[in-house]
Amino acid sequence: MAFDFYSDNTAGVHPKIMAAIAAANEGYATPYGADELSSRLNRVYSELFERETFVFPVSSGTAANGLALGSAMPPYGTVFCHEQAHIVVAEGGSVEFYSGGGRLVLLGGEGCKLAAPSIERALAGYGPGFVQQMHASALTLTQATERGTLYGLDEIKTLTDAARRGGLKVHMDGARFANALVALGVTPAEMTWKSGIDIVSFGTTKNGAMMAEAVLVFDKALAEVVRFKHKRAGFLHSKMRYFSAQLLAYIEDDLWLKNARKSNATARRLADAFTATPGVTLLHPVETNQIFVDLPPEVTKSIEAAGLKFRAWPDPKGRQHRLVASYVDSDDLVRRVENALGR
Amino acid sequence: MAFDFYSDNTAGVHPKIMAAIAAANEGYATPYGADELSSRLNRVYSELFERETFVFPVSSGTAANGLALGSAMPPYGTVFCHEQAHIVVAEGGSVEFYSGGGRLVLLGGEGCKLAAPSIERALAGYGPGFVQQMHASALTLTQATERGTLYGLDEIKTLTDAARRGGLKVHMDGARFANALVALGVTPAEMTWKSGIDIVSFGTTKNGAMMAEAVLVFDKALAEVVRFKHKRAGFLHSKMRYFSAQLLAYIEDDLWLKNARKSNATARRLADAFTATPGVTLLHPVETNQIFVDLPPEVTKSIEAAGLKFRAWPDPKGRQHRLVASYVDSDDLVRRVENALGR
Amino acid sequence: MAFDFYSDNTAGVHPKIMAAIAAANEGYATPYGADELSSRLNRVYSELFERETFVFPVSSGTAANGLALGSAMPPYGTVFCHEQAHIVVAEGGSVEFYSGGGRLVLLGGEGCKLAAPSIERALAGYGPGFVQQMHASALTLTQATERGTLYGLDEIKTLTDAARRGGLKVHMDGARFANALVALGVTPAEMTWKSGIDIVSFGTTKNGAMMAEAVLVFDKALAEVVRFKHKRAGFLHSKMRYFSAQLLAYIEDDLWLKNARKSNATARRLADAFTATPGVTLLHPVETNQIFVDLPPEVTKSIEAAGLKFRAWPDPKGRQHRLVASYVDSDDLVRRVENALGR
Amino acid sequence: MAFDFYSDNTAGVHPKIMAAIAAANEGYATPYGADELSSRLNRVYSELFERETFVFPVSSGTAANGLALGSAMPPYGTVFCHEQAHIVVAEGGSVEFYSGGGRLVLLGGEGCKLAAPSIERALAGYGPGFVQQMHASALTLTQATERGTLYGLDEIKTLTDAARRGGLKVHMDGARFANALVALGVTPAEMTWKSGIDIVSFGTTKNGAMMAEAVLVFDKALAEVVRFKHKRAGFLHSKMRYFSAQLLAYIEDDLWLKNARKSNATARRLADAFTATPGVTLLHPVETNQIFVDLPPEVTKSIEAAGLKFRAWPDPKGRQHRLVASYVDSDDLVRRVENALGR
Repeated sequence: MAFDFYSDNTAGVHPKIMAAIAAANEGYATPYGADELSSRLNRVYSELFERETFVFPVSSGTAANGLALGSAMPPYGTVFCHEQAHIVVAEGGSVEFYSGGGRLVLLGGEGCKLAAPSIERALAGYGPGFVQQMHASALTLTQATERGTLYGLDEIKTLTDAARRGGLKVHMDGARFANALVALGVTPAEMTWKSGIDIVSFGTTKNGAMMAEAVLVFDKALAEVVRFKHKRAGFLHSKMRYFSAQLLAYIEDDLWLKNARKSNATARRLADAFTATPGVTLLHPVETNQIFVDLPPEVTKSIEAAGLKFRAWPDPKGRQHRLVASYVDSDDLVRRVENALGR
Repeated sequence: MAFDFYSDNTAGVHPKIMAAIAAANEGYATPYGADELSSRLNRVYSELFERETFVFPVSSGTAANGLALGSAMPPYGTVFCHEQAHIVVAEGGSVEFYSGGGRLVLLGGEGCKLAAPSIERALAGYGPGFVQQMHASALTLTQATERGTLYGLDEIKTLTDAARRGGLKVHMDGARFANALVALGVTPAEMTWKSGIDIVSFGTTKNGAMMAEAVLVFDKALAEVVRFKHKRAGFLHSKMRYFSAQLLAYIEDDLWLKNARKSNATARRLADAFTATPGVTLLHPVETNQIFVDLPPEVTKSIEAAGLKFRAWPDPKGRQHRLVASYVDSDDLVRRVENALGR
Repeated sequence: MAFDFYSDNTAGVHPKIMAAIAAANEGYATPYGADELSSRLNRVYSELFERETFVFPVSSGTAANGLALGSAMPPYGTVFCHEQAHIVVAEGGSVEFYSGGGRLVLLGGEGCKLAAPSIERALAGYGPGFVQQMHASALTLTQATERGTLYGLDEIKTLTDAARRGGLKVHMDGARFANALVALGVTPAEMTWKSGIDIVSFGTTKNGAMMAEAVLVFDKALAEVVRFKHKRAGFLHSKMRYFSAQLLAYIEDDLWLKNARKSNATARRLADAFTATPGVTLLHPVETNQIFVDLPPEVTKSIEAAGLKFRAWPDPKGRQHRLVASYVDSDDLVRRVENALGR
Repeated sequence: MAFDFYSDNTAGVHPKIMAAIAAANEGYATPYGADELSSRLNRVYSELFERETFVFPVSSGTAANGLALGSAMPPYGTVFCHEQAHIVVAEGGSVEFYSGGGRLVLLGGEGCKLAAPSIERALAGYGPGFVQQMHASALTLTQATERGTLYGLDEIKTLTDAARRGGLKVHMDGARFANALVALGVTPAEMTWKSGIDIVSFGTTKNGAMMAEAVLVFDKALAEVVRFKHKRAGFLHSKMRYFSAQLLAYIEDDLWLKNARKSNATARRLADAFTATPGVTLLHPVETNQIFVDLPPEVTKSIEAAGLKFRAWPDPKGRQHRLVASYVDSDDLVRRVENALGR
């Protein structure tokens, strides 16, 4: 690794998840999701989310977002999203692909967060039979956001209410779902369907899994759409047991919550160290495990002198950096940062 | 498992591949394919195939076929294929999805094998500017076929020559590539580009891996198309190292060839036992690890009496069965079949 | 024209329709379908079809079929159709395009006609959650068929009942709707929704119009899907009045029925002449305005000697020909054929 | 018509074009573009454009833009365009549909005009293998723009040079091609391929035709792509002669240029009258036949008092209006506006 705190997906797989994969490797298993582990998925996640939940494992967050949004809209539909959302800047057009010709409508907002008024303004140009524009179909919000910020439950509810009035389904990109959940101290149900979320990209890979993300759906009819799209994209894996093993182990004994608490806490410590350093500015509130920071040249020099290197974030002045804490970062590594900052 | 010899994808992951995955789990790694293991993929497979080869890992054979064919054709293109090909009967329309509107043109042929004359006849309706029909774009052949039969090198060459004359790119669905390779006793280069193949779905999951298939491309321009489609479908995995580890371990020390030889040999033994049993007919030559067999009721009864159960294959008389041998099947299991058949 | 009776779309535009176009050319008109003529379309066709009917003008039958079927299915859906249907052999993949990745499932049947048992057999492989196959979405039947034959009302009902049991919507390709209607002597309502048809490609161009076809929908929700697809494909024409003028004039004073009766009668006369000629065989019953005929070489010679030339139909022996009568064919032209046949 | 100068597509068809359509209505003609008129299209337009030009008639500008851009990009491509371009705000997602999943990248610019620096900045995030973003495929510029402004030849060249450096093909939305051409006083060749344009939506409907637009292509390979997409979308019309007749009559004896000069001159007169009216501001230079004007309430009142009504343009203060002059507007109508403005 050329960078420290480059991203949470640079971390390996958690030992308990590796053990679950190894345990799944015993004997024969019926393929294509008819194995014993996979048959438990819907039940276990339905308990976790306190209502019937349909689980569709995929191998990446890009696939999850594309599949979820592409199923929540017709090919002639639009998705309202933040202009810096991952689906806009880093997924190669997955939503356009999975929807078969949909469009992303980009909205602004501080800290990568959407606000209801901008959604309402955007919706003004859409409506039944307003075919000059496309069909207003879905809203997506990322929780925690791409800047590490959070939507509170009230904020989610306000957004989903605005969406509902405009006839939109609402998707949550939960690449860092667990980090948001523990930061808010709420339940999975509260952060999703109880707040008006229809479909979730449930991320586990950044928080200890190997390649197991899932699309979670709370509505049976929508699940049938996802089911067909999931298959034809190639995610009805023949050896599904290895995906299911991860998704089950991930939430067993609160592993996911523990991992997320650890990475959030690491980010908190780093943020405190930055805050205490003269000339350093946090670009966004550090509410989960991501830190965006503006570093003066002399601080960057101290950090480099300590043998550390952070990822530069696009910025004309070359001062902005992003750090993402993961569940594996050692106390020693954090202390080295603190020392370099003179703490 | 309710069935014996149900499919080769009911087997678990080979210990050496599990070990490679575990070894890949050390420390941090750059995400999205920029890790050390992934950076070796193209080189290692280029050596194996004796020319520059671009490797695109995906998580299923359906994804591999969709991505490969969808990249080898325009949205208005057609793929000529066997009417019983896996892409026709079992992949939920992956080619139509990845191509964005292409069409499969179904051809007949004994033992799931295509023949040049039927391709030539089919091509008669196509040509530059024949827009009533679509654009004749690709031919796909499965090696070993969905009935376990094989194309010899000469047969492949005859088909790819016919395809080339019609302007088609040629894809090989190699879900059981290794089984075919060892049965023919040829090199990967000979079975692919030296015989006119442009793009390959390289299967490993049925022969010892966990969820690592790959699209292999021999042409740089075509690889650029695959690269963009691969990303937007969601297969540029953040933790790519775990896919690459499998693809590297799979071919190391000839593991793949050994596994395939074993499953082919098991199928051979089973086929011999069936052949020697009065009233039993093999529906196709057993050339790799699949067996299609017609069993009289009394034989089915003996088998069930021995506590064994085979997968019925659609057949009005209820006599046909499919058995697929895998690299893990025990000598004991085979012997039980032999005993049940009175050998 | 190099051929006689080449097709009904070789005829020009009927004078009454030309007059309607000219009349529409007075003064300004609000664009995009908000003009006075266009605003009457839905009402006039609703009266004609005896229930609420939504009319979407397009400029070709290929567009009508693609738009209609592409709206009646999801991108992962299948359309069951005759293997010789126009959408299969002559529309460049319009259904795959408008659906965004759907598939045509080809069924056989004499005289280009489908039968319920083959639909039921085909449906056996499909069902809710049978994702290996795609989603069984629609059935399409052509009335009159591509061989000039007809479905009786009972036959249509039997087919749509089978389709309904399989969850399919039913589309009628009515490129020659009028020819079928007058041959059966039934009402538009009887031949469509009263017999279980959900959506119609309503052809007028082959029967006297210039470039005005229409997708007719009887269900409001389905109409909303069509509306968005119609717009984005480019058929919400700015000067819609010229399309609407044709669609209105076409049915005014039974123009369409008169034209169709004339072309059917011409075909009947030609068919009778062929039937009376030794060695000549009609390949299909002549029920509307198309004739498929097998001509011995000496008859072909007589015809050519008379300065006539018919369109050869693909046939290894070179004896088959297709003739299509149109509303403009002169009595003189028909008499020349009769004379050449020795009548 | 509820509005005066509502749009140029409220005008009827020019008598010479009506006459050409009537003349085309003689006798039989081979269908699907094999008629005599259609066979002249490519030659006549090649002469007009001074190089080989492939002409694909379609029935609307939306279809032209979708087909042209959808053919100049892969499904995973992006089109750089002005944020107020017609393809963005008024075509229901035609580019996303015809491309099968592409994306519009919106750029700003005064008077609906793009500038090279913003294109260059936008291109910074794209490049070979930059799969996080999509493939940078095409640039589109509208000439005359959606605000009636013009790109000079130098400006076009500067834009197409920037595009070329970024590997983009360049499309011109020429819905008002003739208005721009006569305003600049240049040749069709100069305004297109000599300035780096690859593909053109050639508009005729707003300038005197009925429903005949055309995609013009200067490159044979690109034309082959358009040809297949043109067919499957449904624009290989059976009675193509009526489209070709319009496209031929349109440019015969400079009809198109005369019509465009007339509508431009009318707009000029109206603009002069507005300019001379106290309190009235032209929002953009009036360079062709469109006028965007800010009217104080008292002026609006005078206009209404004169029995005139202009189309309001979205504007929080309710003062902005758009007028579009067409080739049919009478001197009397213009004089009434002048009078209302106190000229």
